[in-house]
Amino acid sequence: MQLAKVLGTVVSTQKDPSLTGCKLLLLQFIDESGELLPSYEVAADFVGAGTDEWVLVSRGSAARQSERSDGRALDALVVAIVDTVTVNNSSLYKKYQ
Amino acid sequence: MQLAKVLGTVVSTQKDPSLTGCKLLLLQFIDESGELLPSYEVAADFVGAGTDEWVLVSRGSAARQSERSDGRALDALVVAIVDTVTVNNSSLYKKYQ
Amino acid sequence: MQLAKVLGTVVSTQKDPSLTGCKLLLLQFIDESGELLPSYEVAADFVGAGTDEWVLVSRGSAARQSERSDGRALDALVVAIVDTVTVNNSSLYKKYQ
Amino acid sequence: MQLAKVLGTVVSTQKDPSLTGCKLLLLQFIDESGELLPSYEVAADFVGAGTDEWVLVSRGSAARQSERSDGRALDALVVAIVDTVTVNNSSLYKKYQ
Amino acid sequence: MQLAKVLGTVVSTQKDPSLTGCKLLLLQFIDESGELLPSYEVAADFVGAGTDEWVLVSRGSAARQSERSDGRALDALVVAIVDTVTVNNSSLYKKYQ
Repeated sequence: MQLAKVLGTVVSTQKDPSLTGCKLLLLQFIDESGELLPSYEVAADFVGAGTDEWVLVSRGSAARQSERSDGRALDALVVAIVDTVTVNNSSLYKKYQ
Repeated sequence: MQLAKVLGTVVSTQKDPSLTGCKLLLLQFIDESGELLPSYEVAADFVGAGTDEWVLVSRGSAARQSERSDGRALDALVVAIVDTVTVNNSSLYKKYQ
Repeated sequence: MQLAKVLGTVVSTQKDPSLTGCKLLLLQFIDESGELLPSYEVAADFVGAGTDEWVLVSRGSAARQSERSDGRALDALVVAIVDTVTVNNSSLYKKYQ
Repeated sequence: MQLAKVLGTVVSTQKDPSLTGCKLLLLQFIDESGELLPSYEVAADFVGAGTDEWVLVSRGSAARQSERSDGRALDALVVAIVDTVTVNNSSLYKKYQ
Repeated sequence: MQLAKVLGTVVSTQKDPSLTGCKLLLLQFIDESGELLPSYEVAADFVGAGTDEWVLVSRGSAARQSERSDGRALDALVVAIVDTVTVNNSSLYKKYQ
């Protein structure tokens, strides 16, 4: 999985029927030191992540292993809102600073 | 999923039988600020996207999760025509400006 | 899928039994302006592509969605010989110039 | 699979139900000469790897082929703790130097 | 599939049960002119490749399409030892020069 920050949203009305009812978030990836990377992903979100939150993203067929994403034409899914990231036993990120 | 712009079309008569009846679009990827990226994809399209439209592309096995792409030797599928993209609560793209 | 040009062939006698009877082509990828890219793929071919022809390549599990590639340890498959590529309504490539 | 070094941990309480009970490690990839690469992965770990240990990571659907990861929305899994890596018949890495 | 050269081996005792009995090779990728690329893969090998030999590697779910790799948490598999590579009708590589 990859760490990413919620950047915004993507809305579409004309789409594959399997995407009906999916909230789509625009995410920007973060590296292991917490810096934003120049690459992004559009992922479905059923966990309820908000703008600027750090999340974990699963891609590929993993994106359809959740009950609410099963069988949908999705290749990226927000699977968690990150509370903390620890690197070499020191804190890199804490959701509630 | 990735954001992309419809660039053109690819036509083939000599092909795997599973691709029969598939419209194939040449897409160029877009980054999170709306700039064209130097990479592209050829994707099947059953949603009906037109040249210059912004679309969402699913890749890998996700490309076969739609009724009309199931069982076809496809690894990329247009899954939505984008209406709006919002970044940090301000509009990056609106289909109907 | 990706556009590629047939560069050559790869032959192997000592291989996984599932690859028996597979013609393996060495392909070089092409970008959206028709230029050769510095990356390549070895793909199975049941469509019958010849050297220098432009083809479409499916990768990942899509490579096993064709009758003749089903169940084989393949992750890349030639799925079409390209007739034409149109970009912004003008012709980028025509097999029969 | 890829070689990586255990860098730290990622903790989340608000997540997809399928991730319940998963220990998530932050890993940094290593190249074939043992140097750290500027790319990382968050992977589930049921093998019990500790900080600084070298591990093997499987990604994609392979991450769900283990009994404890089956059916979870995971796309990366620690599948082994590395004892030794040999390159051109000489030792690159030994866990117990 | 990708062309690669056998660089060495990776040994692990503490691992996912599904990897028991797998020989793991460290491979370095080769480009279409036979030059070594700065990227590598650890792949399971049931074909019996030796150091310095050129091999073909399948990645992703393809790595589990062989009888001996089915159901294992593997995402890369040596599927062939290369005899010859021909580019533009001239020989790039011959195992038995």
